[in-house]
Amino acid sequence: MARHIIVLILCLPCFFPLFAQEPSGYNLWLPYSKISESPVLKEYTDITKTISLPGASQTLQIARTELNRALKKMLGAPPSVATSLRADPTLLIGTKDLLPPELQKMVNDDLSRAGDEGFVIKSVKHRKKKILLISANGDIGILYGVFRFLNLMQQHQSFVKISLVDYPKIDLRMLNHWDNLDRTIERGYAGFSLWNWQKLPEFIDQRYIDYARANASIGINAVSLTNVNANALILTPMYLEKVKALADVFRPYGIKVYLTARFSAPIEIGTLKTADPLDPNVKQWWADKADQIYSLIPDFGGFLVKANSEGQPGPQNYGRNHVDGANMLAESLRPHGGNVIWRAFVYSEHDADDRAKQAYTEFVPYDGKFMDNVLVQTKNGPIDFQPREPFHPMFGAMPKTPLMMEFQITQEYLGFSTHLVFLPKLYEEVLDADTYQQGEGSTVARIIDGTLQNQKISGMAGVSNVGNDMNWTGHPMAQANWYGFGRLAWDPYLSSETIAEEWLRMTFSNQEAFIGPMKEMLIKSREAVVNYMNPLGLHHIFDTGHHYGPGPWVSELSRPEWNPTYYHNADAKGIGFDRTPSGSNATEQYAEPLRSRLNDPDTCPERYLLWFHHLSWDYRLKNGKTLWQGMALKYQEGVDQVEEMIATWKQMQPYVDQVRHKEVQMLLQIQLKEAKWWRDACLLYFQTFSKKDLPEGVGKPTRTLEHFKSLKFPFAPGIRPQWN
Amino acid sequence: MARHIIVLILCLPCFFPLFAQEPSGYNLWLPYSKISESPVLKEYTDITKTISLPGASQTLQIARTELNRALKKMLGAPPSVATSLRADPTLLIGTKDLLPPELQKMVNDDLSRAGDEGFVIKSVKHRKKKILLISANGDIGILYGVFRFLNLMQQHQSFVKISLVDYPKIDLRMLNHWDNLDRTIERGYAGFSLWNWQKLPEFIDQRYIDYARANASIGINAVSLTNVNANALILTPMYLEKVKALADVFRPYGIKVYLTARFSAPIEIGTLKTADPLDPNVKQWWADKADQIYSLIPDFGGFLVKANSEGQPGPQNYGRNHVDGANMLAESLRPHGGNVIWRAFVYSEHDADDRAKQAYTEFVPYDGKFMDNVLVQTKNGPIDFQPREPFHPMFGAMPKTPLMMEFQITQEYLGFSTHLVFLPKLYEEVLDADTYQQGEGSTVARIIDGTLQNQKISGMAGVSNVGNDMNWTGHPMAQANWYGFGRLAWDPYLSSETIAEEWLRMTFSNQEAFIGPMKEMLIKSREAVVNYMNPLGLHHIFDTGHHYGPGPWVSELSRPEWNPTYYHNADAKGIGFDRTPSGSNATEQYAEPLRSRLNDPDTCPERYLLWFHHLSWDYRLKNGKTLWQGMALKYQEGVDQVEEMIATWKQMQPYVDQVRHKEVQMLLQIQLKEAKWWRDACLLYFQTFSKKDLPEGVGKPTRTLEHFKSLKFPFAPGIRPQWN
Repeated sequence: MARHIIVLILCLPCFFPLFAQEPSGYNLWLPYSKISESPVLKEYTDITKTISLPGASQTLQIARTELNRALKKMLGAPPSVATSLRADPTLLIGTKDLLPPELQKMVNDDLSRAGDEGFVIKSVKHRKKKILLISANGDIGILYGVFRFLNLMQQHQSFVKISLVDYPKIDLRMLNHWDNLDRTIERGYAGFSLWNWQKLPEFIDQRYIDYARANASIGINAVSLTNVNANALILTPMYLEKVKALADVFRPYGIKVYLTARFSAPIEIGTLKTADPLDPNVKQWWADKADQIYSLIPDFGGFLVKANSEGQPGPQNYGRNHVDGANMLAESLRPHGGNVIWRAFVYSEHDADDRAKQAYTEFVPYDGKFMDNVLVQTKNGPIDFQPREPFHPMFGAMPKTPLMMEFQITQEYLGFSTHLVFLPKLYEEVLDADTYQQGEGSTVARIIDGTLQNQKISGMAGVSNVGNDMNWTGHPMAQANWYGFGRLAWDPYLSSETIAEEWLRMTFSNQEAFIGPMKEMLIKSREAVVNYMNPLGLHHIFDTGHHYGPGPWVSELSRPEWNPTYYHNADAKGIGFDRTPSGSNATEQYAEPLRSRLNDPDTCPERYLLWFHHLSWDYRLKNGKTLWQGMALKYQEGVDQVEEMIATWKQMQPYVDQVRHKEVQMLLQIQLKEAKWWRDACLLYFQTFSKKDLPEGVGKPTRTLEHFKSLKFPFAPGIRPQWN
Repeated sequence: MARHIIVLILCLPCFFPLFAQEPSGYNLWLPYSKISESPVLKEYTDITKTISLPGASQTLQIARTELNRALKKMLGAPPSVATSLRADPTLLIGTKDLLPPELQKMVNDDLSRAGDEGFVIKSVKHRKKKILLISANGDIGILYGVFRFLNLMQQHQSFVKISLVDYPKIDLRMLNHWDNLDRTIERGYAGFSLWNWQKLPEFIDQRYIDYARANASIGINAVSLTNVNANALILTPMYLEKVKALADVFRPYGIKVYLTARFSAPIEIGTLKTADPLDPNVKQWWADKADQIYSLIPDFGGFLVKANSEGQPGPQNYGRNHVDGANMLAESLRPHGGNVIWRAFVYSEHDADDRAKQAYTEFVPYDGKFMDNVLVQTKNGPIDFQPREPFHPMFGAMPKTPLMMEFQITQEYLGFSTHLVFLPKLYEEVLDADTYQQGEGSTVARIIDGTLQNQKISGMAGVSNVGNDMNWTGHPMAQANWYGFGRLAWDPYLSSETIAEEWLRMTFSNQEAFIGPMKEMLIKSREAVVNYMNPLGLHHIFDTGHHYGPGPWVSELSRPEWNPTYYHNADAKGIGFDRTPSGSNATEQYAEPLRSRLNDPDTCPERYLLWFHHLSWDYRLKNGKTLWQGMALKYQEGVDQVEEMIATWKQMQPYVDQVRHKEVQMLLQIQLKEAKWWRDACLLYFQTFSKKDLPEGVGKPTRTLEHFKSLKFPFAPGIRPQWN
């Protein structure tokens, strides 16, 4: 065998990562990676030496389990967590009423601010020793406090001098699932619905529990289970039993369940001939339905309603208005403490006015007329979840109505789950925007959290990006958008940079060589997608139906405001939607001095330029380029930014498990291909009007305009099923 | 704090299992659990001390990686696997041509039997030392050999005296995925399609790799990706690029890709006006299409075709027959070495004859007329994947045609992914059945593997039960059906007990206290479902469309043979389908002496009684009971058997991780509820004819017949989407 003897002997760990040992990314931002750096390790070991977490509720049991699991993974050994007060704990976790009097005194003031859901994490001296104290007024505050404690541990932060009081600034922190009963998800790009209706109510999928846990870790306290394009069957007894099973799982995590109510349900699943909200039988039907629901789910959240919008039935079918409809439902829920969340996403094919104006026009006159358990849910911008929109002019314009924010976490107009786009940057831009409705500083955040206009209830909803993909969100980095939404719903004044850093540290690594470049990459990613899709205020130029890829040429849809050409108005002279007084005058819906600033192209921020103005191809931008040149260069800039993301990610290999590293790498390549597709398709199309050459620096299109126009995607995910 | 001092200090590992540390069951039968028993541990440590596995192909790299991963998990430390021959290996793994001559001699005879895919695992003496040798003629044989080695290790078997030669008895060992392009799966109950067409070809989901690896571990070497109710778009260039990406992933695992060919594709995605198989333009279109496919996928397997069946287009649309259609496609594939798999699942609304007879009637005359790269794929029974059917009479009746077996692994008529049913028991019953077509011993297995009738090619297909559920198959125990199908496709003479034991040991535990009761439970589970759904030869009494739950009363569907009443023929006198000469004479399609035996109710096995006979309610069964009593007691027996399964499973808690234990527990409760539903609904309905009381021992129905009739499941999974 001599001649077969080898020189090189190879062990093959290098092949290992080709296989996932376990599905990668399932644990989200809660991997609880082992801590090996000594400074915090010593501190953490000391703090967690003896832990007391008294109390018997399910919520407190969950807090203990989480602590146990996390500390075992991070510190290597299972901690000892007592279910009652120990003599000398190093870490004491308990609601205020369970604390010894001398400790109660130390947190009295803090907890008077913390409310039902807040908590305090404080390093205090007790019986001559330093201990770490986590306290709250209620059990859910304890769970939130424990999750924050573990969050900070995952970030390797010191607790030596900590004195942290935190509580949610917004009451309803909600995920809206647009999940259909056949488990397809409208605008869902991470697989299919988590809700396995077939096996409910008996079979409780482990994912329901892990989903609730993930939500609780960021403070989400409400979920609407079903598509706003609703099916009334969800309100039948068979389905309500299933909903109850989910509600029972979610309850100890502090999460209330909402359902979407199809306005015509009394006809479709009842025996009535009408759904007129002023009809006594209809009122009775909904009151009975509410009674039935609450008998199963005593803490049912309420109804989320899309009515008289995009074909959905509503009070207008009977000559009534949104107030009639919302208040009728609110009345049925009021005895039980439930809410109606009534969506303001309306525009009519019978209204020739600018679509961007219609929701304001219709809803603002109703201010003050809704019952006090009604929230009006408004999308962040006046059109429809575009890569960039100015804030919705309704914000601040209805001081007597609690306006609930509706953000989209799922990336309908943002490259599905294929493009890396860090959305907290988008959310922050909206929340920080100044409406000037009550003078300078009337930011959207202050309207949403109710402080500016003294609302009794406040809310923020995000259309969920979660599906049954192994990693929940399809794109590994899209988990950051779920996380970031939750954090901003808790505190709308957090910066997107803070959120990015938290999430990166928790999810991947605390190494500075990773955090620095990755934080920059996340933050820039949102502007990149605006640049290669919809620069300079362009909007709604997506291909029809699926909203995947560019379709600025689409002009033949039955409703004018469904056509991209309606929005860009490109012609030989120029491009853009004139929303100034010379055009649709949508700017009148904004308060001064913003209104005047928007009306003048010189003072209108360039990022909104073509949203508000129709301008000549030769219009001079601030950088001296013509509009045509500037637009073309913006598209190219977007492509270049994706190239940079690819280069950055390549450097991150040492800090990320290989399966996920490879996944993101493949997805970034698709993003690059599609960024070029956007650039080429849009510029070739707009060039048919501008008749101008591409400026230097802009890549040559690889395919013809005809090729791009010919692309069809009949099975793109997320399209509304035909039965709806 | 004295009064707060506690007596009891609890650590809380008991709460741990409420959370899955990682998704439970993802690793299938390859968990590679740590081995702690000393006898085998010592042996295994010695054997794996120095390993040589020379060779550079991707397939061999995969074998090395698998070995590395498995040994690390089972033995605790990463092994040293050399990529070339070592001086003194304890474990030598290599194709014959790479072995030193003295070792080649030792395996020469074995490998002459092993063929392209077989392997030898042998304990041999080499240079005065005992070593373990795994050899094969080709790289895929090495991969199969390594997987078998690890399979045996997982079962804690000794290799001291091993001398094992094994090779597949069947050429095509195939999974048929009925996956649609929108990712729904016809008759799929484990979530949605693994194939993420949207992100292909660029994004290679880790699951594609893990799926291929699982298949290779049991010898599956072919997969058809798309639904037999086909969409022609899969044959367009955009989709073929995606198919190529999957084929590239699967190739090193020894797996070839097949596609379903919609017969009308030349019209739908081409420019032709006809799909007539004798039209030269049509022939040319398919030849060109084959060239295009093979230019992308040089080892493309071929086409699987459902034609002129349940509304699918086919040659009969043009006055041609199945031979014309199959041979035309076969001609297009022959230059490239591809196969046509032509399904024999046909029955016509224009043929008044017994549906069970029609496939035989239509196909047997074609025997000998198909080209030699055509296989005719026949379902195991003459109707449609019922809990029990006699074998299909075509088996053995077409000696000049390779008949390919089609089993269903997904549980369309077997309680979806909610019921625990161990299907290898069903497959074994079919494979062991004696057709008598060439005298006694003409078993279905010998027809399928080609030995009885000297076929040049052989095949067995299973309609996959795999979806994107975390554990692949929905029900944790349904993984055994995927595993068992693969093992039987490799060796149709394996016993279901052997398979059950292998799977249980690999997946859960080697402890005898687990293996004994669980093996019995799996083996019995198939008879349980027959008892509570379709005892004594009853069949096709499922509710319409979704096939979920009982619907024996359904009688109003447009095609008579779609109605359950067509199959059970219950009336005041009796029940059953007379298929003897006094009835449809379907028995004439079976060979003697079986035919005569079936014709006589006294010699017809009681398990097929009502399949072949219409008998009086007072007919006496072998146990002395009347047919009515016996039927009622069988239904009850099924319910009782599920109760026993629940009791057994409860005892298994120590051997199963808690998440999976809980999952199966919940599913068994649903199975019990539904077993009672079947019993109650069927007996109440049949009682309207028999007018007899339920015999003693049969549980009283909990609901009325009207209640059971009123149940509707509009969103049951697996229904054919409307666009098809």
